[in-house]
Amino acid sequence: MTVKNITPVEHRVPTEKRHARNQHRGGVLWFTGLSGSGKSTLGFTLEEVLFREGFQVYVLDGDNVRGGLNRDVDFSPEGRAENIRRIGEVAALFADAGLICISAFISPYRADRATARAAAGEKFHEVFVDASVETCEQRDPKGLYQKARRGEIQDFTGISAPYEPPEKPELVVNTNDQSIGECIEQLATYVRANFKT
Amino acid sequence: MTVKNITPVEHRVPTEKRHARNQHRGGVLWFTGLSGSGKSTLGFTLEEVLFREGFQVYVLDGDNVRGGLNRDVDFSPEGRAENIRRIGEVAALFADAGLICISAFISPYRADRATARAAAGEKFHEVFVDASVETCEQRDPKGLYQKARRGEIQDFTGISAPYEPPEKPELVVNTNDQSIGECIEQLATYVRANFKT
Repeated sequence: MTVKNITPVEHRVPTEKRHARNQHRGGVLWFTGLSGSGKSTLGFTLEEVLFREGFQVYVLDGDNVRGGLNRDVDFSPEGRAENIRRIGEVAALFADAGLICISAFISPYRADRATARAAAGEKFHEVFVDASVETCEQRDPKGLYQKARRGEIQDFTGISAPYEPPEKPELVVNTNDQSIGECIEQLATYVRANFKT
Repeated sequence: MTVKNITPVEHRVPTEKRHARNQHRGGVLWFTGLSGSGKSTLGFTLEEVLFREGFQVYVLDGDNVRGGLNRDVDFSPEGRAENIRRIGEVAALFADAGLICISAFISPYRADRATARAAAGEKFHEVFVDASVETCEQRDPKGLYQKARRGEIQDFTGISAPYEPPEKPELVVNTNDQSIGECIEQLATYVRANFKT
C-alpha cells in the first residue's frame, strides 16, 4: 500500500477524532489515598476490566515513574511536589492522546493535586481511595507502617506526615467497608457513564 | 452491564495484549535534526497518515512539553540534557502503553539521544531528519537562523552550537532532496514493516 495525496499538516490529530476512534474520551483518573488504601490494586484491576471492555487505558504508578522520569526527585517537600507535578503533566499528555490514564500515588497534599488537576483541566477526575489509617496499618502489605512506627521511615503519610483528604473528589471509593469487586464495579460504572462517547 | 467475577490483580495489562488489540506494537520514533529540517511537519503528517490507517499514535514536541512537563528546564547544557531525558522517559511510557510515540526535538547530542534510547530499549527507533544547515537556513520558517546570525540567539544548533548527526539511525529521511510526500511514504512504509503485528 502506498500513501497518496499527502498534504503536509501542521496540526495534531484532533482529540475528537481520537475519541471517535476509541469510542471513549481520554481523561485522568487520579487516585489519591493512604499507603495500603488499595490504589495500586484497584488501579491494575480497573485497568484490566476497562481494557477487556475495549478502553485504551494505562496506569502510572511508582513502578514505572520513580525509576525513570522521576529518578532525580528526592523525598523532600519540594521533591514530592515536583514528583506529583510531573506525573500530573504526563497523565495530561496521555489524556490528550485519548487514553484513560489511572495514576496511583498517595499524593497527600491538596495543592499538589490542584496542580495535577490544572494540567489536565476538565479531563481530570479525582478519585479518593478512602481507608482509615487503622485499616491501612492493619493491612500493611509492605510492612511500611511498622517501620514508620519504629521511626525507620521519616515523614510517613498518616503516621508522621499529614494526609489532606480531597474536598470535592469526583468519586470516593471506600475500601474500609467495600470489597475490591464492589469498588471496581463503582469505578467501572463511573467510567462508562463519564467517558463513553 | 455489571462486572462479574472480579479478581484483584497486581499486574499491568501485558504489552502483548495491547499489541494484539491495536494490531501493532508500541514504540518510539525519535526524530532528530536541525531546526527547520522538517521534524514537526513530518511528525504531524505521519501522525495523521498512521492514525487514518488505524494506528494509536501521538506526537511529543515543544508545544505540549515545553510549557508543561519541562517548563522548569532552562536552555543551559544541563537543562537541555534534562529536557531530552524526560522526553525520552515519557516516550518510553507511551510505547509501553502500546502507542507509537513520535518525538520531534532537535536533540543535537548523541549522549542525550543514547539516554532516550536506553529508556525505551529495543522499542526505540532513531529517525534522522537530514537537511543541511544551508537548506534549513534558506527555509528559516520561524526566522530563527536570521536571529542566530545576528547573535540574538546564543548557542543555536548548526550556527553557534554543534549538531551531532546519528551514527547508526534506524532510518534517514533526507528533506534536502525529497518532498514531504516522499519522506512520509518512506516513514509509513518503515512503520508498517516494523510495527504491524
